[in-house]
Amino acid sequence: MINNITIVGVGLIGGSFALALQDNKIAKHIIGVDANTANLQKALELGIINEALPLVEAVAKSDVIFIAIPVDDTIKVIQKIMPLLRHKQVVVDAGSTKQALCQALQHEPMRARFVATHPMWGTEYSGPEAALHYAFKGKACVICNAADSASDALEIITNIYLQVGMHLVYMNAQAHDLHIAYISHISHITSFALANTVLQKEKEEQAIFELASAGFESTVRLAKSNAAMWVPILQQNKVNVLDVLNELINQLLQFKHSLENDSTPHLKALIDGANKIGTIIK
Amino acid sequence: MINNITIVGVGLIGGSFALALQDNKIAKHIIGVDANTANLQKALELGIINEALPLVEAVAKSDVIFIAIPVDDTIKVIQKIMPLLRHKQVVVDAGSTKQALCQALQHEPMRARFVATHPMWGTEYSGPEAALHYAFKGKACVICNAADSASDALEIITNIYLQVGMHLVYMNAQAHDLHIAYISHISHITSFALANTVLQKEKEEQAIFELASAGFESTVRLAKSNAAMWVPILQQNKVNVLDVLNELINQLLQFKHSLENDSTPHLKALIDGANKIGTIIK
Repeated sequence: MINNITIVGVGLIGGSFALALQDNKIAKHIIGVDANTANLQKALELGIINEALPLVEAVAKSDVIFIAIPVDDTIKVIQKIMPLLRHKQVVVDAGSTKQALCQALQHEPMRARFVATHPMWGTEYSGPEAALHYAFKGKACVICNAADSASDALEIITNIYLQVGMHLVYMNAQAHDLHIAYISHISHITSFALANTVLQKEKEEQAIFELASAGFESTVRLAKSNAAMWVPILQQNKVNVLDVLNELINQLLQFKHSLENDSTPHLKALIDGANKIGTIIK
Repeated sequence: MINNITIVGVGLIGGSFALALQDNKIAKHIIGVDANTANLQKALELGIINEALPLVEAVAKSDVIFIAIPVDDTIKVIQKIMPLLRHKQVVVDAGSTKQALCQALQHEPMRARFVATHPMWGTEYSGPEAALHYAFKGKACVICNAADSASDALEIITNIYLQVGMHLVYMNAQAHDLHIAYISHISHITSFALANTVLQKEKEEQAIFELASAGFESTVRLAKSNAAMWVPILQQNKVNVLDVLNELINQLLQFKHSLENDSTPHLKALIDGANKIGTIIK
């Protein structure tokens, strides 16, 4: 059992991670740090954290520091923490982009105390009220550039994720950002764009509300995800995201052309092709 | 209680409707009709239907005939049934497009015995094995061009839907097809296109499998929907679908430009705009 773990950012991810630490008896004491004092107070009230402290004091007391804030702030906060670190302390992040972060930290003298990770779970909601028990159980956690972390730091972090019930996938930061652009980032863009399309075209909100079925809800669900988190993710992963976004636009143009040309075989081929995703995602 | 109800098309929708009739004790006897004899046999084995018959014999015995087959076949089958109908019998369909169907039937002498409906429920699966109990409960059912149906026919059908637990929304066929293009058809196209994009870009199927999270799965879920059902839907609703598809491509181009130009305010505005869907869809 670890004595003190600090969670920087007691929102959806940080809050759920704190609950997982409690539920699996991984930490004796959980300290919360958050620029948003209302969220910090809420996390205390909900029993998600045991204590709220300013960043510098929290770091001084902690064995492990878990960062779960927007990916642009993550770089700044870890650069602030690095010079404060003693040996044996470990910093870990949960961000959805890894290349910009690993690049920014590559010359830090304490780089080996940092483990770059991406636990693959989230919902479209935010804040400590959105935190869920057992959220990470059964999900994948990507560990990036493992060779750049000290082996004891890596061992502490991977043990935590394993105890929480995750399985580990090792990848370098570049490959991570490429794959995640395909699997996660583009899903969010399609969902945002679909929501904007419907809000633009459908002037009768009552019709959306009355007719929305499970299909629409699941496709548009991610469109509730907030800009504070998603603007920096998409910008940090701009090259990969633009590459896959161009392909998505190309695929939509193929649907458009097959409809305009009344080409039944083409339209059928596009849908048959899409069905293959069912052999990979059950 | 109704004596005999025929279900034409004992797949996902027809099968779930038959189960709803049983669960709510609406029909004494359920007859199945299906061009696919394996599905018909399966529906008998699963207890979804009580008897399997050819179309003409089934129609002769039935008080209500419920059509749940692809929307192009729906027109042909109803045109075949119409001359066989006696007064008091009622035909109802469950298709996702209404304008082409209502137009095709407008000069049929027995038009008043037909009720055009769209129960707003479905999954990405097909066949009688995919049928679910209580599928329609709590969902909306659109009744189109109600004035073209005889009042007794309308009463029988709306009573069935109400007993099944649906709430009714009345709309003309033209408005239905327009709203459904926005709410349902475009969601399917985005999901198909997203699946094709990921399959095109991501050459490592293992990565999709390992990294796919709930967000990706929910956005791509509808891409498993089959071409036999969706090609005729998209083609029948071509004008509305192309209109909303053009807007979706336009919205995606705005994401592309905001990323290419590093325009944080524009990207933030696009995401903030999309978030408004959360005030309509909880």
